[in-house]
Amino acid sequence: AGEQWLEDSAWPEGTVGRLMEEPVAVFAAGTRVHEAVDALRDAVRHTLITYIYVVDTSDRLVGVVAFRELLYAAADDTLADVMVRSPFALKPDMELFDAMHEVVTRHYPVYPVCDDDRRLIGVVRGSVLFEQQAYEISAQAGSMVGVEKEERTATPWLRALKFRHPWLQLNLFTAFIAAAVVGTFQDTVNRIVLLAVFIPVLSGQCSNTGCQALAVTLRGMTLGELRAGQAAALMAKEALLGFANGALTGLVAAIGMFALATMQHHPQPGMLASITFVAMVASCAISGVAGAAVPLALKRLGADPATASSIFLTTATDVVSMALFLGLAAWLIA
Amino acid sequence: AGEQWLEDSAWPEGTVGRLMEEPVAVFAAGTRVHEAVDALRDAVRHTLITYIYVVDTSDRLVGVVAFRELLYAAADDTLADVMVRSPFALKPDMELFDAMHEVVTRHYPVYPVCDDDRRLIGVVRGSVLFEQQAYEISAQAGSMVGVEKEERTATPWLRALKFRHPWLQLNLFTAFIAAAVVGTFQDTVNRIVLLAVFIPVLSGQCSNTGCQALAVTLRGMTLGELRAGQAAALMAKEALLGFANGALTGLVAAIGMFALATMQHHPQPGMLASITFVAMVASCAISGVAGAAVPLALKRLGADPATASSIFLTTATDVVSMALFLGLAAWLIA
Repeated sequence: AGEQWLEDSAWPEGTVGRLMEEPVAVFAAGTRVHEAVDALRDAVRHTLITYIYVVDTSDRLVGVVAFRELLYAAADDTLADVMVRSPFALKPDMELFDAMHEVVTRHYPVYPVCDDDRRLIGVVRGSVLFEQQAYEISAQAGSMVGVEKEERTATPWLRALKFRHPWLQLNLFTAFIAAAVVGTFQDTVNRIVLLAVFIPVLSGQCSNTGCQALAVTLRGMTLGELRAGQAAALMAKEALLGFANGALTGLVAAIGMFALATMQHHPQPGMLASITFVAMVASCAISGVAGAAVPLALKRLGADPATASSIFLTTATDVVSMALFLGLAAWLIA
Repeated sequence: AGEQWLEDSAWPEGTVGRLMEEPVAVFAAGTRVHEAVDALRDAVRHTLITYIYVVDTSDRLVGVVAFRELLYAAADDTLADVMVRSPFALKPDMELFDAMHEVVTRHYPVYPVCDDDRRLIGVVRGSVLFEQQAYEISAQAGSMVGVEKEERTATPWLRALKFRHPWLQLNLFTAFIAAAVVGTFQDTVNRIVLLAVFIPVLSGQCSNTGCQALAVTLRGMTLGELRAGQAAALMAKEALLGFANGALTGLVAAIGMFALATMQHHPQPGMLASITFVAMVASCAISGVAGAAVPLALKRLGADPATASSIFLTTATDVVSMALFLGLAAWLIA
C-alpha cells in the first residue's frame, strides 16, 4: 500500500499532492457499523485515524464518517446510513494557496484528496496545510527582494550567495537605468548641485510609498481578497493615497529645499521648492499605482506575484521620480 | 456559561486567549463512559465536539478523551480509565507566534487552554490558530515599510492614509539624514558630477542587499529557527554574503564607472572605478550586517521586529554608503 506514497514527489512542489498521506480507514458503503468498528479496533491503537472514508465499487469517495457518528449509530446500520454524503474534497494538483482559500472556512482536521473522477487517492491534515502555508507566506518578504523560498537562516552562505546574487545583478542593471536618467541631466545637476542632495530623498520616499502599495496588494492576493475586476479600483485607490501622501511629505520636503536653497544663496529658492513639491506629489502617486500594478502584472504574466517585485518596482519609481524632478529643474530653472 | 466568552476581548490582541471558544464537553474523572456518551448524544447533533475534557474537582484539566476511545471502551469504564493523562495545553496569555511553535509538531485539531493553575478555561481550534498566523505573517512585508497589520485591500483610503502617513514622514526625516551626508560633500559632487549619477546605483544596491538579509532574519524569527546566541553567527554570515555580493556587483559597477568616466574624459577614470568598487564592497557588507541587526535590535527593544524595519535599514545603508563613496572621492580625487 505504501508504494503510492513513495511517489508523492510526482506531484509538483507547492501542490496539495505533495502533502498527502495514505487514507487508512476506507470502507465500502454497504459495510455495517459494527464491522467497521471491529475492523479498526487494532488500527486506532497505533495510527491517528480521524475520519472513516466511504467509497463506492469504483473507489470513488461517496461519504465520510466520524467516530462520533459510529458511536451513536445502531450496530446494524450501514456506513451509507450514517455517513455525510458528497463530502468536500481537495484535488492533488491544486496550488496550496488555492487549497487554503477552499478550506479556510471549513476547519476540518483532515481533508480527503480525490482525482478528477472523485477517486480517493489520499488525505491531507488541515494543520499540515496551514503549516505549509505559513512557511510559504513567510517567504514573501524575501521573495520581493530576490531571496529564494527555500532559503532559511541555516542555509550555507555559498548556497545563499548563488540564490541571491543573480537578483542583485538584475537590481544593478535596473539601477543603471535610473543612473542613466540622472546622467541625462548631468548639466542641470552640475549647475544646481542641491538637486543631487535631494535625489536620495525623492528616491527613498517613492520607493517606500510604492512598497506600501505593493505589500497591501500582495497580501490581498495571498489572502484571496482580490476579486477579478478589482484591479482598476485598487490602482485608483493607491494613486489617491500616493497623491495625498506625496502632497504632505512633499510639503515638508519643499520647505527643506527652500531653507537649504536660501542658506546657499540660490537665486530661485521658491522655484526649487515648487519643483520639489510637484515632483514628490506626482512621483508618489505614480509609485502607488506601480506598487499595485507590479504584482498584478507579474501574476498575469504567469510568474509568482512576489518574486523580485520590489526590484521591478523601485526601478520604475526611481526612473519616473528622477526624470520628473531633474526634467522640471532643467526646464524651469535658467 | 456564555458569559466568560463575552469577555474574550479581555485578552490582549495577538494572544491565544483572543481565539478561545467555550469547551462544551467537560466531565469529572469518575464519569462512566456510558454516562458521558448519553450526556453528549444530543449535543453532538448541533455542536462540533472533537474531544471530551476531563477535570478534577477544582476544574483542573487532568485528561482528554476522543470519541474513538469512547467507542472502544467498556461502557462501565470511567473516563479516568480511558483518558490521555496530563494533556498538552496552551495558556491564554501566550503570544500567537509562541503558541505556534508549541503546536507545530502536534497537529491536534483542538487545543485546551488552561490558566496557571491548569484550570480549563477554553479551547482553541488548531485551524483557527494557523489561519490567524497566516494572517499575521502575511502582514509582515507591509509592516516593514509602515503598513498597519489591520490594513486590507478593502480598507478605506482615508483610514489607510492615517495609518501609513506617519511612517512616510519618518522615512522622509531619515532621508534628510542621508541627504545631509550628500550635502556635506556638495563641493566634491560639484567637481565630479559623475558621482551624483552613481548615488542611486549605490543606494539601490545596498538597500536591496540589506533587505535580503532583513527578510531572511525576520523569517527565521517568525518560524522560530533563531536560537539564543545565534545572532552573532547570523550577522557574520550576512557580512560575508554582503561582501561577496558587493564584490561581484561592485566589479560590474566599477566597469560602468570606468567606461562613463573615460567617455567623459575625466582625468582619473581608474581612481573613480576603484572608489566605486571599494564603496560597493564595504557598503554591501555593512548593509548585510545591518539587515540582520535591525530586527534583532527591534525585538530586544520590545518592539515588533518587522515594524518599519525597512525604513530604519535603508536609512542606515544610505548614510553609510554615501559617506563612504563621497568621502573616498573627496579624499582621493584631486
